[in-house]
Amino acid sequence: MSTEATGMEYAAPDLEALKFNADGLIPVIVQDDENDQVLMLAWMDREALRRTLGEGRVTYWSRSRGEYWRKGDTSGHRQYVRSVAADCDGDTLLVRVLQQGAACHTGTRSCFDGRELTGAVGDPDGPDGEPSTGDAAAQTGPQAPVG
Amino acid sequence: MSTEATGMEYAAPDLEALKFNADGLIPVIVQDDENDQVLMLAWMDREALRRTLGEGRVTYWSRSRGEYWRKGDTSGHRQYVRSVAADCDGDTLLVRVLQQGAACHTGTRSCFDGRELTGAVGDPDGPDGEPSTGDAAAQTGPQAPVG
Repeated sequence: MSTEATGMEYAAPDLEALKFNADGLIPVIVQDDENDQVLMLAWMDREALRRTLGEGRVTYWSRSRGEYWRKGDTSGHRQYVRSVAADCDGDTLLVRVLQQGAACHTGTRSCFDGRELTGAVGDPDGPDGEPSTGDAAAQTGPQAPVG
Repeated sequence: MSTEATGMEYAAPDLEALKFNADGLIPVIVQDDENDQVLMLAWMDREALRRTLGEGRVTYWSRSRGEYWRKGDTSGHRQYVRSVAADCDGDTLLVRVLQQGAACHTGTRSCFDGRELTGAVGDPDGPDGEPSTGDAAAQTGPQAPVG
């Protein structure tokens, strides 16, 4: 296969090795190519991936609506593909994008903005695997912060 | 609930709002807190999340082995929690970690290293939604690169 100047051919062996779940879907991590922020997680089936790799615009399968969803067609918040990589098991994709506007339907840049859970912060220099006692753990029941 | 000096109490309302799938699992994107590289995707059930938030070390549910898997206990490649965030739908987590050694069991730092799929690269300044013709598309059959 000629790559011409674009190098935009399909890597068929890679695609064949991908593992889709029982619903025919694969999770897709979307990362901002400009600042490395993780923007969202969505799902593709083989056809959505085919469209994404073919068009350079990201298309998902919407599990809630049961239809293809090319990001930005309604919102204007388009995602242009910078790269697509599979993981070692072939059951997850990482798509780096040029994101126009907000990636999240709530209007935040990332779907994870401002939604932090509180919990123990790990410390490699601390004791490891040895429960400490703490006010938070005592009040909420679960295991206390460790290391 | 007192936050003491650590602020490490549990955010019970957030946890209750999380959505686990039919298998009781939630996908977890793992990002390197030092350089923002996406390292891997794995899965947690409620107990794995409870342990992770309580210990500051990341614990997953291994779907292949059917057991809890505290990252690094066997490999030494531990993950220390820097932050945990839910997404807007409450059905995905983003964990930022201090990663010791390789995150991937193959020995690469990230599970996505060197596993790029080839496809069209999007261009917001190009024509959008209008198929172009190209050597790659002609040879492989799917839609040609767009925009």
